[in-house]
Amino acid sequence: MNESAVKKIVVLTSGGDAPGMNAALRAVVRTASHYNIDCYGIREGFNGLINNDFTKMGPRSVKHIISEGGTILRSARSLQFKTPEGRKKAYENCLQHGIEGIVCIGGDGTFRGAKVFYEEYGIKVIGVPGTIDNDIFGTDNTIGYDTALNTAMDAIDKIRDTATSHNRVFFVEVMGRDAGFIALNSGLATGAIDILIPERKDSIEELFATFERAEKAGKSSSIVVVAEGERMGSIYDIAKATQNSFPQYDIRVAVLGHIQRGGSPSCADRVLASRLGYGAVVGLMEGKTNVMVGMQSNRMVYTAIEEAIKKHNEIDQDLLKISEILAI
Amino acid sequence: MNESAVKKIVVLTSGGDAPGMNAALRAVVRTASHYNIDCYGIREGFNGLINNDFTKMGPRSVKHIISEGGTILRSARSLQFKTPEGRKKAYENCLQHGIEGIVCIGGDGTFRGAKVFYEEYGIKVIGVPGTIDNDIFGTDNTIGYDTALNTAMDAIDKIRDTATSHNRVFFVEVMGRDAGFIALNSGLATGAIDILIPERKDSIEELFATFERAEKAGKSSSIVVVAEGERMGSIYDIAKATQNSFPQYDIRVAVLGHIQRGGSPSCADRVLASRLGYGAVVGLMEGKTNVMVGMQSNRMVYTAIEEAIKKHNEIDQDLLKISEILAI
Amino acid sequence: MNESAVKKIVVLTSGGDAPGMNAALRAVVRTASHYNIDCYGIREGFNGLINNDFTKMGPRSVKHIISEGGTILRSARSLQFKTPEGRKKAYENCLQHGIEGIVCIGGDGTFRGAKVFYEEYGIKVIGVPGTIDNDIFGTDNTIGYDTALNTAMDAIDKIRDTATSHNRVFFVEVMGRDAGFIALNSGLATGAIDILIPERKDSIEELFATFERAEKAGKSSSIVVVAEGERMGSIYDIAKATQNSFPQYDIRVAVLGHIQRGGSPSCADRVLASRLGYGAVVGLMEGKTNVMVGMQSNRMVYTAIEEAIKKHNEIDQDLLKISEILAI
Amino acid sequence: MNESAVKKIVVLTSGGDAPGMNAALRAVVRTASHYNIDCYGIREGFNGLINNDFTKMGPRSVKHIISEGGTILRSARSLQFKTPEGRKKAYENCLQHGIEGIVCIGGDGTFRGAKVFYEEYGIKVIGVPGTIDNDIFGTDNTIGYDTALNTAMDAIDKIRDTATSHNRVFFVEVMGRDAGFIALNSGLATGAIDILIPERKDSIEELFATFERAEKAGKSSSIVVVAEGERMGSIYDIAKATQNSFPQYDIRVAVLGHIQRGGSPSCADRVLASRLGYGAVVGLMEGKTNVMVGMQSNRMVYTAIEEAIKKHNEIDQDLLKISEILAI
Repeated sequence: MNESAVKKIVVLTSGGDAPGMNAALRAVVRTASHYNIDCYGIREGFNGLINNDFTKMGPRSVKHIISEGGTILRSARSLQFKTPEGRKKAYENCLQHGIEGIVCIGGDGTFRGAKVFYEEYGIKVIGVPGTIDNDIFGTDNTIGYDTALNTAMDAIDKIRDTATSHNRVFFVEVMGRDAGFIALNSGLATGAIDILIPERKDSIEELFATFERAEKAGKSSSIVVVAEGERMGSIYDIAKATQNSFPQYDIRVAVLGHIQRGGSPSCADRVLASRLGYGAVVGLMEGKTNVMVGMQSNRMVYTAIEEAIKKHNEIDQDLLKISEILAI
Repeated sequence: MNESAVKKIVVLTSGGDAPGMNAALRAVVRTASHYNIDCYGIREGFNGLINNDFTKMGPRSVKHIISEGGTILRSARSLQFKTPEGRKKAYENCLQHGIEGIVCIGGDGTFRGAKVFYEEYGIKVIGVPGTIDNDIFGTDNTIGYDTALNTAMDAIDKIRDTATSHNRVFFVEVMGRDAGFIALNSGLATGAIDILIPERKDSIEELFATFERAEKAGKSSSIVVVAEGERMGSIYDIAKATQNSFPQYDIRVAVLGHIQRGGSPSCADRVLASRLGYGAVVGLMEGKTNVMVGMQSNRMVYTAIEEAIKKHNEIDQDLLKISEILAI
Repeated sequence: MNESAVKKIVVLTSGGDAPGMNAALRAVVRTASHYNIDCYGIREGFNGLINNDFTKMGPRSVKHIISEGGTILRSARSLQFKTPEGRKKAYENCLQHGIEGIVCIGGDGTFRGAKVFYEEYGIKVIGVPGTIDNDIFGTDNTIGYDTALNTAMDAIDKIRDTATSHNRVFFVEVMGRDAGFIALNSGLATGAIDILIPERKDSIEELFATFERAEKAGKSSSIVVVAEGERMGSIYDIAKATQNSFPQYDIRVAVLGHIQRGGSPSCADRVLASRLGYGAVVGLMEGKTNVMVGMQSNRMVYTAIEEAIKKHNEIDQDLLKISEILAI
Repeated sequence: MNESAVKKIVVLTSGGDAPGMNAALRAVVRTASHYNIDCYGIREGFNGLINNDFTKMGPRSVKHIISEGGTILRSARSLQFKTPEGRKKAYENCLQHGIEGIVCIGGDGTFRGAKVFYEEYGIKVIGVPGTIDNDIFGTDNTIGYDTALNTAMDAIDKIRDTATSHNRVFFVEVMGRDAGFIALNSGLATGAIDILIPERKDSIEELFATFERAEKAGKSSSIVVVAEGERMGSIYDIAKATQNSFPQYDIRVAVLGHIQRGGSPSCADRVLASRLGYGAVVGLMEGKTNVMVGMQSNRMVYTAIEEAIKKHNEIDQDLLKISEILAI
């Protein structure tokens, strides 16, 4: 490898936490160490840049964290960093430490902040997609998404036990913000009779028709998975409307909530996070900036941050169709 | 063993389902088979007695179910069985099949039904305590309780990851109806700073004092576990009051809900269910009736159903004290 | 869709079982039902074809199996099917039932049998890659591989606890036959200091050098993951050689074994299996034969069985390098 | 509470590690802090006493460890502490720090060392039973036992999937040293057709008779759980003898090994460890010495170390009988 374009970098985690952020952090720190690049950890996202919360990190600082959920650097959404004054302070602290590159692990809010900072002050930035929502363009999967799928699936499997024992109908809300990836995949994986996601225009009539088909097919218990971003209404409204039309049903609502953000990362997430953490440091060394590192079709790919934010991974229409065919 | 007091029995699961009900059912069926007693499974609790839904069961009918959550016989709360007419019909069906004993797996509602039926018609009944709430007198643990504890704990561990990553305060509601066993044990096991249970008079002032102590001790994230039966108010009200007094906190509420009823039973629950299922059949064979079988201090014990319903397992005051000492 | 090329099909699972085979089976049966194609399940792989063990399956035959490990059709390696007489009998049974297509879920041994049968008798065959080893060409992942990775990782995480508590060195053998995919990915995901796989020429000297580097770096416990197909020698020999050169080490060997084949499939495996089961039926309907259905870069792809058997997925050299950089 | 008998204590973990040791350690440190007692952690068991490896611990030193397997203090079997010279050095270090009490978390080897040390030098010692084997008298359960049961059960459940898919017979070895508790309970919980434990005189003829009964009853796959301390011979010998007598069986051996020592502790283990850690400190404060703290029938009990070592928890004969009745 040629001379590295950076000699001192920082790494931070920002936005909603996701399983595998620690694994990515470990990869950043150890790759930097391997190539003799100084690496500082910044606590609580961009706030740490502003508050001058820099800690030198070495290979042993990140031992055993590959299996841990959350992020040892902690995360935060920084209001100050949205102000010119905040960013100026952050820049001055970077300057003081001689920082030449910043690895930002997080979602699109994080990337927006990084982009503005680069454009204003010229310190190289590279994004690592860490979010359970899988809503970032430029990578097949985001870090944390696979773990969240398994967590949601395990929870719905448990609910299935009690649904079946009581001939009940459960509406289960899963996370994903404006994206339906978690809903579609966890719903397919748990045999949900219907899956309501924001990417598709759902209607209450179609839902009711599905219930009728399920009943005709002899299903005695049913689960409907609802994405938190579903646009038809809140899960409680949908459940209530269903109860009104099917008074004979014993209906329950379950909101899975924050358990989906935690837990030890899956193997796929640890491997993905390791690759992307490595790729981020190598990208900076090669002089890349204002890009996000991702994996597409098993190859490392760098996408302009602007593009990563603007575009979106699209829901697979085939998968939607398959989920309908297999449900009943 | 002397001549058995019964030659034909039925088994049913009733009330809220609990992990391990299938393991108990398997034990009933196989023990009956071992002692050459005919055994019928009744579907959907007492409803099945009324609807004449009897199925002959043998050792192979229950294969592989020891590891499955829920109950293959399904469960229900029967309104009809609360009427004299419903019970009369159930009796006539039992008479027709020559049934001499009934094993009822469930909670106190189930036991109440069994008791009335025995007193009216004289068919021997024996209760097996299956409920995650652990609120039945006459057994150290009920079937499903240990599994529910582990499920709640795993979920709270996951929430801890995200709480720590964001310096957040989480209020987590766990099940248990009027009893605080799940809350106390899962809260202790996850390092909750406070545990709110119906067995103790909690006050919002004490809760606030705990937050202040936690902060002073340097805790940066906090979890409060709240029993669903907590009498101080709903978890949302408590969270709101806390937010008002501590506006700087980033507070979230999580209601774990029905995941706590499902899942493959723990080893302790499978062993307990196996013992109690065996004990139920042996009890009937020995002529026992109107009793519940339980395990106390590792010995099998039969308690009058009346007593099992009226009395309650008490929360361990030492454990409460220990949880406070260790929390911060 | 045009007229289907097949109206009656069978489905079987063969070779080593893998988590997700049941999910694939469910998808085959429900897709067939959706398109009004008769579908029979064959028990115990090709043996069932020979023994005329055909069972008509409908949507309810496969309820709740999406979450179950193993295969409800059971699997077997059939010696009889390797003989012309065995295949003749299988053909006669297919003829008698009017079978026009066969879905074979399994690994390369299974595909070889299917290919010969098609070439001899002309009944359409399609392969679905179900094996934990991930050694099949024509699909990014095989069904069961992701689950096996997580199972191996969880086991190694547990071993890590005891390794760290005692400053021990553990050699852990994982499955994968001639392929190192499970070893490389589970080793990377658990922070193994070295990973020995058959695709790379390893030497005992390099291993010893790694131990020395690890020690110098301050690591107090170490895990080496060894693929079962490693060509340097048995795991016991490697451990013994290490002990001789590092008498101060407290060395243990752990062979993970058959736990890697079982368990409830991961979300990724359930989704993959659902897609491929669907794709197999649609492929037959479109007249495809002698091919395997796979997913590559998130698209469904049909590969000639001959090619799927002959070629192999290659170990990612980047991943090998990353695992070395991050290990210590 | 009266004046405490101790003002400065140490805590150490020794012998084989067990899940929940960290939870016990946390309880010791926080209870000591609560009662204003100085507490030092000793690394690597008695070795740390000899090597003067004392670290002052406070409530924050043990944060988040309640959920972690292994022991952050590390464990070791100390040869030096078995010599008078080693113990003299340990005493001098204790004297220098003003240590008045020692909490020893471990098994019977640990307790033997503590007892000798107390008898020679008069520093108060109290034992906390931490071992997965459950072979300590004076407590219903040892710390780590419940977690090990669940780990063994989960592994055998996975093996069951593959056993059933292939009509195989599996011999599975579980840990427990000279005791059969893990084997009996995990075998019962997984429906093993036979369970071989050192507490009962097993014979190969009885095992063969069991296989014949299982076959007659229509079981198509079978699991035999073997305790590592089984006296009939090694698991490989038993498997080989079975193969010779039943050549038609497809037999496999699985040794679960060290995964049984690791993993995040179960809720029951975390609660037990918390109680016993608390009880150890309170015991020392009340002037107790040369005793072990345990839980019997849900009450805290102190047993002379001598008795805890000499006597043994007995295998429950009823449970053995029940496991046989339910197996087939």
